[in-house]
Amino acid sequence: MPATSMEELVSLCKRRGFIFQGSEIYGGLQGFYDYGPLGVELKNNIKAAWWRSNVYERDDMEGLDASIIMHRMVLRHSGHEATFSDPMIDNKKNNKRYRLDHLLKDQKADVQAKVAEIMGESADNFAALVAALNAKPAQASAAFKEAGVRDPFSGEVGEWTDPKPFNMMFRTTIGPVADEESYGYLRPETAQGIFTNFKNVVDSTSRRLPFGIAQIGKAFRNEITPRNFIFRVRELEQMEIEFFVTPGTDEEWHEHWLEKRLKWWEDQGVPREKIEILDVPKEDLAHYSKRTYDLMYDYPTLGHEEIEGIANRSDYDLGSHTKSQSELGLVAKVEENNDSIAKLTIPHPETNKPVVPFVIEPSAGVDRAMLAVLSEAFTKETLENGNERIVLKLKPHLAPIKVAVIPLARNREEITDVAKAIKAELQGLGLGRVLYEDSGNIGKAYRRHDEVGTPYCVTVDFDTVGLGENTDESLKDTVTVRDRDTLAQERVKISELAGWIQAKLR
Amino acid sequence: MPATSMEELVSLCKRRGFIFQGSEIYGGLQGFYDYGPLGVELKNNIKAAWWRSNVYERDDMEGLDASIIMHRMVLRHSGHEATFSDPMIDNKKNNKRYRLDHLLKDQKADVQAKVAEIMGESADNFAALVAALNAKPAQASAAFKEAGVRDPFSGEVGEWTDPKPFNMMFRTTIGPVADEESYGYLRPETAQGIFTNFKNVVDSTSRRLPFGIAQIGKAFRNEITPRNFIFRVRELEQMEIEFFVTPGTDEEWHEHWLEKRLKWWEDQGVPREKIEILDVPKEDLAHYSKRTYDLMYDYPTLGHEEIEGIANRSDYDLGSHTKSQSELGLVAKVEENNDSIAKLTIPHPETNKPVVPFVIEPSAGVDRAMLAVLSEAFTKETLENGNERIVLKLKPHLAPIKVAVIPLARNREEITDVAKAIKAELQGLGLGRVLYEDSGNIGKAYRRHDEVGTPYCVTVDFDTVGLGENTDESLKDTVTVRDRDTLAQERVKISELAGWIQAKLR
Repeated sequence: MPATSMEELVSLCKRRGFIFQGSEIYGGLQGFYDYGPLGVELKNNIKAAWWRSNVYERDDMEGLDASIIMHRMVLRHSGHEATFSDPMIDNKKNNKRYRLDHLLKDQKADVQAKVAEIMGESADNFAALVAALNAKPAQASAAFKEAGVRDPFSGEVGEWTDPKPFNMMFRTTIGPVADEESYGYLRPETAQGIFTNFKNVVDSTSRRLPFGIAQIGKAFRNEITPRNFIFRVRELEQMEIEFFVTPGTDEEWHEHWLEKRLKWWEDQGVPREKIEILDVPKEDLAHYSKRTYDLMYDYPTLGHEEIEGIANRSDYDLGSHTKSQSELGLVAKVEENNDSIAKLTIPHPETNKPVVPFVIEPSAGVDRAMLAVLSEAFTKETLENGNERIVLKLKPHLAPIKVAVIPLARNREEITDVAKAIKAELQGLGLGRVLYEDSGNIGKAYRRHDEVGTPYCVTVDFDTVGLGENTDESLKDTVTVRDRDTLAQERVKISELAGWIQAKLR
Repeated sequence: MPATSMEELVSLCKRRGFIFQGSEIYGGLQGFYDYGPLGVELKNNIKAAWWRSNVYERDDMEGLDASIIMHRMVLRHSGHEATFSDPMIDNKKNNKRYRLDHLLKDQKADVQAKVAEIMGESADNFAALVAALNAKPAQASAAFKEAGVRDPFSGEVGEWTDPKPFNMMFRTTIGPVADEESYGYLRPETAQGIFTNFKNVVDSTSRRLPFGIAQIGKAFRNEITPRNFIFRVRELEQMEIEFFVTPGTDEEWHEHWLEKRLKWWEDQGVPREKIEILDVPKEDLAHYSKRTYDLMYDYPTLGHEEIEGIANRSDYDLGSHTKSQSELGLVAKVEENNDSIAKLTIPHPETNKPVVPFVIEPSAGVDRAMLAVLSEAFTKETLENGNERIVLKLKPHLAPIKVAVIPLARNREEITDVAKAIKAELQGLGLGRVLYEDSGNIGKAYRRHDEVGTPYCVTVDFDTVGLGENTDESLKDTVTVRDRDTLAQERVKISELAGWIQAKLR
């Protein structure tokens, strides 16, 4: 049974070293998290699984790793300068600032209903209500006042300003001169680095349509109210594909990627039945999108929230970043671009004439993936002896530690030497991290490795080295292997251990 | 023979898709680079080799992945707010700004000698001369004027201001309110995320001294004059270890790490004889350092420049970030800290009393590593037939593509089906990227894969599928495997190919 609340995940993550609050010793920095010894392994394993599936196992994909800080022109022509904003609203009584939709969501049902009534909207269509509030700022602040919208910080009814847009990009000065042009942005999505390198990749690889470019990396969003642990953060990591196709074949490829991505989530232990496919209604689509599927995973406590978006972005992005726009017969409505120095076209596979391809974009969050994977793996079990245990039933390829090798006595060299040699041999298999575990007694070690999802514990004991009490010779040069899920313990010959483990973990 | 100039490396990197200028289609952003399809693989392979050697293969190391944006208090108490700066100097004639030491280095020898003479310093000790110029700003500008220091941009003698310090940290506003306290810094080094998480890691892993924490990640430095391709950039990636030891054992551990790191560089194809070990003179040491070894690699064009620093930082860092400093008997001189909420101690292995450990820090740059690895691998050869070829003799574990599988005819399904099946089988070995290569003729494919360092090319031809002209039955179900370094071509049975490749690449 998966996790039933966010709290039990947060608690496990902190206790076992998956995730810590960023800058914690100085009181923490809201919306920033640090990944601890186990978190970094789980995160790297998720990223490696994505890269393997989307780059290595396909014959139509290239990888990329573009810089985080980008030229302001990139984010101007991508549309982010103008539109990457959330509505914010201030409480004049205490100068607290909120994201409009978050503030409204935090109100009691009757207050929400009242706001909706005043605005002439239905309380059941939350998105439409928020849109109406944004469209009529003066009416919005009046409605908030009349309905008695409370400040979550003070608990009292606030004195609300008109909502206004707040751009969520982090900006920073580049170079020693702080003039009006010497700034750049921390990318709000990795995608833009792919579009701006389209020509570089085509020129250096001779790719033809259809093909994609994949990238994993950090992105930054100055969220007004970061919340829900690592679900909505200011520093996040994305796994994005921009898949370039001949116009006219885009709808077919959109379906291809929907299917592929659902399969991938399943392979990571996130089953289809926990993901709702939201075919985003026309009126809610971003202006560049022809059609978008949002994959909504059923997170504990949060309910269904986006874990991945798969968008048909038409020729909007390359069309926005290309020069000579007017000659290219673009389908999407783009802003004029007189700054780009590159023509972002590729030969049409049939006519050989230059064409701006359409783009299918499967875009997933690493942090949200980790939260879903942890949530699905989290299991509370009552054992036969009546004890309860927490165990992370992670897929082995995602487990932060593949095998823990435990010497039964920490100070007996006969035992620790053998344990260290086994650890080194298993590590050499290249399956991921193998841990030499001598931090506590065997019971504590098993409990710890259940909780962090280690598939196998290998214990070296006195029998292994021929020093057991009943000197059973058949146990010499064997170790106990304990299975995380079944709890079965099996005696395996050291000489056969590497093969045994490899067969189980491959 | 390694590369003889930076130019030939830059040219190869751009042509073959290793590295592109950041934001290039908008004229580029100085000091920022994007890693292309091959660059991202090489970079990931270098990082994986470092992680394997320093985390997986040791029994005394934990990993970490902390956030890039950090609380301003972290960078205040680390000393970066006060001291992470370079001296800059302006030319009042054209408002160009330079880093003082870079400007001086760009002058002719006689101008440098004249500046030294005026300042009463020796021109042979460049570091001391720069220090003197910084210490006496008014005298410095007068000396620059008198010596006739030229502006590299205009070529004319400049009208120089007094030098002043320029802090190199990128700063950004966090949250929707831009007041005096709502900002943070992009970390200038990954190290600080390790120090601030010291207690979290100890608490969640039960580590005892000695042990280390390793981290790979981006760091940002607002260099006044970024230069020399990916050598001095504004967005970089670091591989850092903070190894915590009992005070008194630090000198021994310092030697241990020097030896370990030289061995690692050798394993990546960067030989010891190309690295000069600089035992940094006492007077040049940073104030927190007890002793530092700088590993100076002999880069083409640049000469000996730092590829890694291995510092004995005493108890300066944890001592600076801990609360209750006065009770802890710190050795290093630290600034007072009333902001930290954590005591950063660990039990002394012998007395069990809380102690602030000493730190040995091996700190290497990923980008500089890549430049060195590329430089060593770069080879220009004259073949027996008199032709010249460029080949990257990369260690196989670093090669971006392990095997290229080439169908001799791109449009014959009998051949492409077999080639694709072989590609999928070899990819499944988990050795890294295997490429299905059908972008050109066989000669071009070989040239390309020599230049990007692919150890083996596997060619599927008409004989493989029993359609060869002289129908030699013994060639059926075999492929040609070409060795990058020896150019030897061998006919291998498809059924034995996976084992053959695995034996060569493991």
